[in-house]
Amino acid sequence: MTIFNLTRRYFPILTWGAEYSRSTFTNDLIVAGIVTVMLIPQSLAYAMLAGLPPEVGLYASMAPLILYAIFGTSRTLAVGPVAVASLMTAAAVGQLASPGTPEYYGAAVALAMVSGLLLLAMGLLRLGFLANFLSHPVISGFITASGIQIAASQLAPVLGIQAHGENFLDLMQSILPNFEHINPYTATIGLSSLIFLFWVRRGLKPLLLKFGLAERSADLLAKTGPIAAIAAATLSVWGLGLTEHGVKIVGTVPQGFPELAMPTVDLALWATILVPALLISIVGYVESISVALTLAAKRRQRIDPDQELIALGMANVGSAISGGFPVTGGFSRSVVNFDAGAETPAAGAFTAIGIAFATLFLTPLLYFLPNATLAATIIVAVLSLVDIGALKRTYTYSKTDFTAMAATITLTLVEGVEAGLLAGVSLSIFLHLYRTSKPHIAVVGQLPGAMTFRNVNRHVVVTDPEILSLRIDASLYFPNARFIEDYINQSVADSPEIRHVILECPAVNTIDFSALETLEAINYRLKDGGITLHLSEVKGPVMDGLQKSHFLHELTGKVHLTQFDAVSSINSSLAQHTLEAHKENH
Amino acid sequence: MTIFNLTRRYFPILTWGAEYSRSTFTNDLIVAGIVTVMLIPQSLAYAMLAGLPPEVGLYASMAPLILYAIFGTSRTLAVGPVAVASLMTAAAVGQLASPGTPEYYGAAVALAMVSGLLLLAMGLLRLGFLANFLSHPVISGFITASGIQIAASQLAPVLGIQAHGENFLDLMQSILPNFEHINPYTATIGLSSLIFLFWVRRGLKPLLLKFGLAERSADLLAKTGPIAAIAAATLSVWGLGLTEHGVKIVGTVPQGFPELAMPTVDLALWATILVPALLISIVGYVESISVALTLAAKRRQRIDPDQELIALGMANVGSAISGGFPVTGGFSRSVVNFDAGAETPAAGAFTAIGIAFATLFLTPLLYFLPNATLAATIIVAVLSLVDIGALKRTYTYSKTDFTAMAATITLTLVEGVEAGLLAGVSLSIFLHLYRTSKPHIAVVGQLPGAMTFRNVNRHVVVTDPEILSLRIDASLYFPNARFIEDYINQSVADSPEIRHVILECPAVNTIDFSALETLEAINYRLKDGGITLHLSEVKGPVMDGLQKSHFLHELTGKVHLTQFDAVSSINSSLAQHTLEAHKENH
Repeated sequence: MTIFNLTRRYFPILTWGAEYSRSTFTNDLIVAGIVTVMLIPQSLAYAMLAGLPPEVGLYASMAPLILYAIFGTSRTLAVGPVAVASLMTAAAVGQLASPGTPEYYGAAVALAMVSGLLLLAMGLLRLGFLANFLSHPVISGFITASGIQIAASQLAPVLGIQAHGENFLDLMQSILPNFEHINPYTATIGLSSLIFLFWVRRGLKPLLLKFGLAERSADLLAKTGPIAAIAAATLSVWGLGLTEHGVKIVGTVPQGFPELAMPTVDLALWATILVPALLISIVGYVESISVALTLAAKRRQRIDPDQELIALGMANVGSAISGGFPVTGGFSRSVVNFDAGAETPAAGAFTAIGIAFATLFLTPLLYFLPNATLAATIIVAVLSLVDIGALKRTYTYSKTDFTAMAATITLTLVEGVEAGLLAGVSLSIFLHLYRTSKPHIAVVGQLPGAMTFRNVNRHVVVTDPEILSLRIDASLYFPNARFIEDYINQSVADSPEIRHVILECPAVNTIDFSALETLEAINYRLKDGGITLHLSEVKGPVMDGLQKSHFLHELTGKVHLTQFDAVSSINSSLAQHTLEAHKENH
Repeated sequence: MTIFNLTRRYFPILTWGAEYSRSTFTNDLIVAGIVTVMLIPQSLAYAMLAGLPPEVGLYASMAPLILYAIFGTSRTLAVGPVAVASLMTAAAVGQLASPGTPEYYGAAVALAMVSGLLLLAMGLLRLGFLANFLSHPVISGFITASGIQIAASQLAPVLGIQAHGENFLDLMQSILPNFEHINPYTATIGLSSLIFLFWVRRGLKPLLLKFGLAERSADLLAKTGPIAAIAAATLSVWGLGLTEHGVKIVGTVPQGFPELAMPTVDLALWATILVPALLISIVGYVESISVALTLAAKRRQRIDPDQELIALGMANVGSAISGGFPVTGGFSRSVVNFDAGAETPAAGAFTAIGIAFATLFLTPLLYFLPNATLAATIIVAVLSLVDIGALKRTYTYSKTDFTAMAATITLTLVEGVEAGLLAGVSLSIFLHLYRTSKPHIAVVGQLPGAMTFRNVNRHVVVTDPEILSLRIDASLYFPNARFIEDYINQSVADSPEIRHVILECPAVNTIDFSALETLEAINYRLKDGGITLHLSEVKGPVMDGLQKSHFLHELTGKVHLTQFDAVSSINSSLAQHTLEAHKENH
């Protein structure tokens, strides 16, 4: 690969930037305006969910967007703070410090840094495949459980009571006894925000359509609901002086930019947060890449999964340097970006400028914004993550997958996000290792009158009691080599009449050194028992490999072109032997 | 399964015991005599290697043999202390206490206990497949490195100097500066034992054969070499009063049986030794099962891998209860047992009785046995484990496997046994996950004039630019689902003329829920791009599964019986469309 190509691969901005036109610019600018308006309350709310000061949400919505615009391969993905990553941040950092302390904030920034470095390393080493080991049932179960837990955690601010807990059980035990301490003013604001936001989600769009608005405009207008709720709630608190009645508000949000600073390289702290950082990275990556792929498919655009790791890595490192917390590509904001008509990642960069403007000039407007309304926007946002139907669909399709999903949900709710996710991933990898260690092997026989061989359990075929023909439907490598060895040993021990074993290898794409030694052992042991071993239909590259070893010299039988050849040649040599034995007797 | 069958499965003694005859009894008794003589010096030597008092080696050679006779499925496997497990015991326990202290001994006993419980659990849960993830190159590299390290560690006692170290590097740094402190008396005994034992191994058997002995007798007699060396060395030390010149001897070995006692359930200690115990269990199991399989094949006997886990687990628990340390099925002693003609596991039980007799009455004879001679027997035994040729064979066959092997050897020698083994296993699992996440996908085309489809890269075939035909050579599940998704996305993004994608699925044995959702996503995204998705050659059970989902309703194309049908039906519907378009134009 030339340096030119390499540069283009690692800096996708060079590709789309070269074609950037004035009309695209105008379009991206309009999109950025819409997304900015939507992003401000979301950023504040997710910072609150992570246990951080509201301005940190704004900080995490500037540098990451610009860096993603430079390094990302999706034209429409919008990065920033998201619900699940914020919950995971709170869970990880909460074990190290108390919310509100500088240590807590420092740990959240370090988490973004380590998470970013991990993503970068995975991208440069092309380890994106590791994310595959988060299976769909596990990630879906995890997101459902996280959604339930986030909603539960926001119930307290909506009602104006105190509650805390690392998992759903703890939260509920903490909330229920406090129901008598509900603040009626806070609860009124919180519940009416909640009802309004639900109505916006369900009822506003049909209403706007009925009033003759175009589909796309109705969609976008309905998405500004949170801004309307926030404006109304802020005005009420200010106008009615509700802070005197104990309604909690956002208060002073520092104006101006964060100081850019490399987070201190505190290796002890980094080691402590390594596992949570890895989990946040992988969950964030999985969410982000699936959104990117879905949106790219609509316009037949390309996504480079490894470059996406680099882009998300840079975005998180950028977030850490500018005082933010972990970010990733979010579903709802990317869809808004896409629906609003974003054509290039420049829309993201312009959004960052919009947020910067808000951070500089608009934060005083947020002073009287009640926490209850922010909590309500979170609840409405995360309930769309809860997908109970997926449990049923998974159960109908596969009991194994359902088990992994149920275990993830249960452990997440009972023990917390890290325990749930780790259990799910471990279970998935374990099931995968188990499955690949037991390859499919079919005893085959000849279809009468044909030269083809088929599974004896599925077809009426001809077999010879002296010949055991096995078709191996997998590559041979260390995880499954012993299974094949055991299978042959048991078959031969069970049928004393067997004199020949033929392995039909049309599906064997590779034979690694462990499997080669296993084949040698099988050959050697069969020889001890007076049985010859043959192979048939060995693929070209596999045969090339075998020729580099001693196996072919030691093989008691032969390598035949087809299974039919193998059986015929054994039968004819048997006939030969019988003939010779017959002659000797005479 | 009936209770009767279950009992027979878990107690193989019921099967062979039912056929036990007087002649088998006599035979097994003779075998036991031979094996006992060979086992005594080995047991003492391996206890010394593990840093334990010599009698612990005897304790580990009684109860485990009897328990294996009850639970084991191999007729000829001989369990007891082995070199590699003893080295691993020393490495694990050495981190917790100093050799010679009661804590050290207690930890070694606990290690046998935990290792036994782990093996039992793996056997009852049928997790034997986990041992497969120790690939051949890793285990072979590990055993070679262990052999080198054990030999190095025994150099000091052979020469009568002090040395210690957790790995080969440390050992060498500890031995080399002490060369001036060599004790000439110890070194004379040690080196002459070494030379004698090497000669016995190489030269004695041919000599005996020349004197007219039968092959088998010569073999067995040659194996008594260590006993002769020990007798000669002991007599010399006693006769020449060499202890006064600083020659270290075994000294008082307590007579009589160990006290049977459950080791204290010290969960904190057990947690500390969990990883080493797991590694010892798995390495021991792999060694044991491969010996068992090799010997069983010679007589076409059956080995049940899961029951072997239970038998080795019981043997280790038994060892712990009777004050012994970790044991497993050893190669050299099993071969002696087999060559001597052992017919049933009763030979092992009778060997245990022989060792018990020795423990009761013969230990005073061991008082003047010099440590240097025991060390020499260890060096001779372990050098046969070192297989440098395997490095070359692996390198020739596969660079990937060679890398795993070289990494294991290097880390074992430089860092120690646990680091080396863990690195090897992690690397193997990582490579496995990587490999299974990238399944083989072939773009296929039609062989001219035939109904079959083949890889476009290997055959001259006919393809249609509007149809992308892909043969997927693997089951579809979560580790590889995303790869297939990416592959299709990139292919479609690269070739704008594609209108149909056909997945040929003859090698797809299962589709898990992750892969099902991925197929749904592929179908949905292709639909967005105006492309239909078809499947062909879907296996019966897979089709049954798909019918339980909504996928078939949403599929934009069809499921065809064969790839040929798929292409024909697409072409005919294309022709239909063209015809209709043609008609409309007129």
